[in-house]
Amino acid sequence: MNERVTLTTELNVFAAFKPKLPEKYRNSKYVFLANIAPDLQRDVLQQVKVRPKLAALDTMNYWIERTNAELRETLKHVDILMINDSETRELSSEHNLLRAAKHIFKMGPTTLVAKRGEYGAMMVDKRGVFCVPAFPLEEPHDPTGAGDSFAGGFMGYLAGCGDKSDAALRRAMVYGSVMGSFAVEKFGLDRLRHLKRNEIHARARHFAKLTQFKL
Amino acid sequence: MNERVTLTTELNVFAAFKPKLPEKYRNSKYVFLANIAPDLQRDVLQQVKVRPKLAALDTMNYWIERTNAELRETLKHVDILMINDSETRELSSEHNLLRAAKHIFKMGPTTLVAKRGEYGAMMVDKRGVFCVPAFPLEEPHDPTGAGDSFAGGFMGYLAGCGDKSDAALRRAMVYGSVMGSFAVEKFGLDRLRHLKRNEIHARARHFAKLTQFKL
Repeated sequence: MNERVTLTTELNVFAAFKPKLPEKYRNSKYVFLANIAPDLQRDVLQQVKVRPKLAALDTMNYWIERTNAELRETLKHVDILMINDSETRELSSEHNLLRAAKHIFKMGPTTLVAKRGEYGAMMVDKRGVFCVPAFPLEEPHDPTGAGDSFAGGFMGYLAGCGDKSDAALRRAMVYGSVMGSFAVEKFGLDRLRHLKRNEIHARARHFAKLTQFKL
Repeated sequence: MNERVTLTTELNVFAAFKPKLPEKYRNSKYVFLANIAPDLQRDVLQQVKVRPKLAALDTMNYWIERTNAELRETLKHVDILMINDSETRELSSEHNLLRAAKHIFKMGPTTLVAKRGEYGAMMVDKRGVFCVPAFPLEEPHDPTGAGDSFAGGFMGYLAGCGDKSDAALRRAMVYGSVMGSFAVEKFGLDRLRHLKRNEIHARARHFAKLTQFKL
């Protein structure tokens, strides 16, 4: 389940989509631009009145290949690029993620979050690198939406605490992984629909056990 | 560099190799059986006079496919199976590493260490799962020997501290990753030849920074 192969992309309803932010969203401090046409992402960002405290963007091969110039323009306005590792490589023309990150920093973002499917995620910024594994599950059912759930957990954590320190970003990576791991446990949204806040925190503590060691 | 494809295996000098342990090695408490014919691995283990405190074994597709019965026999006598994730899957006929581990525990080992190349390594035993990332390097040069260097760091750490607790095994995973990361930095043994003990400990501390977070 780690590798997605794009056979064809049908934009369907998104082909003529022109999102208009409701008035109450226009003061958002934390903005995540999910994977859609880069021009639309920029348009959404411009509808936010004050420059957000943090703007993150996801994209994919379709936009990297077909709307590269528009994507480059939009990237100038975001803080975090949050994409799959294979697309990190495609966008930067670099296989190595550390070198890829340096290319991406020149495009605008100051932080790269590379999602690596069953291998977890890696965050790179000028302060260094942080790695979080994927939560080991015996029966993952449906990887659809894992990346968006990761982004939701990540941004939701940061918006909730109002902190952009390295320590907060690390916790955001953990909560992103937590939400991604719940998303894949059942089909579609079935697991998220009934998820309780205490289950989320319990799994975050479980992530600590997965990775903790004392020298 | 994460995936090895075996085109052909020429055993060369190993085809008629019959290792005879020097007398002073026969009291070893920590034994690592590197990747070679499973019958020879068992023969080496039997030359050790007292059952070691810890015996670990590496193997590969060649032996899994051609000498499966002999490998199964040898596995009954070791504590830790330390192999690539792709070979974990081949040996257990299970893609999922947690389910693969359960199959492997029935074969004899109580601990599985699955090496995942650039994605690090995962340890599974009945107490749970521990993940360590690979050290992010901008310029890895030669993956040859990374797995054996991992095993050397892992076993060397445990033999040095004489402790088999979960905490010690976690540190062993970190020192395994440390040694693997040094091995790939230069061609062949070039980096290990000049490696200093303080560089090893410094990189282990760097691993803590890579993975640490506080909830």
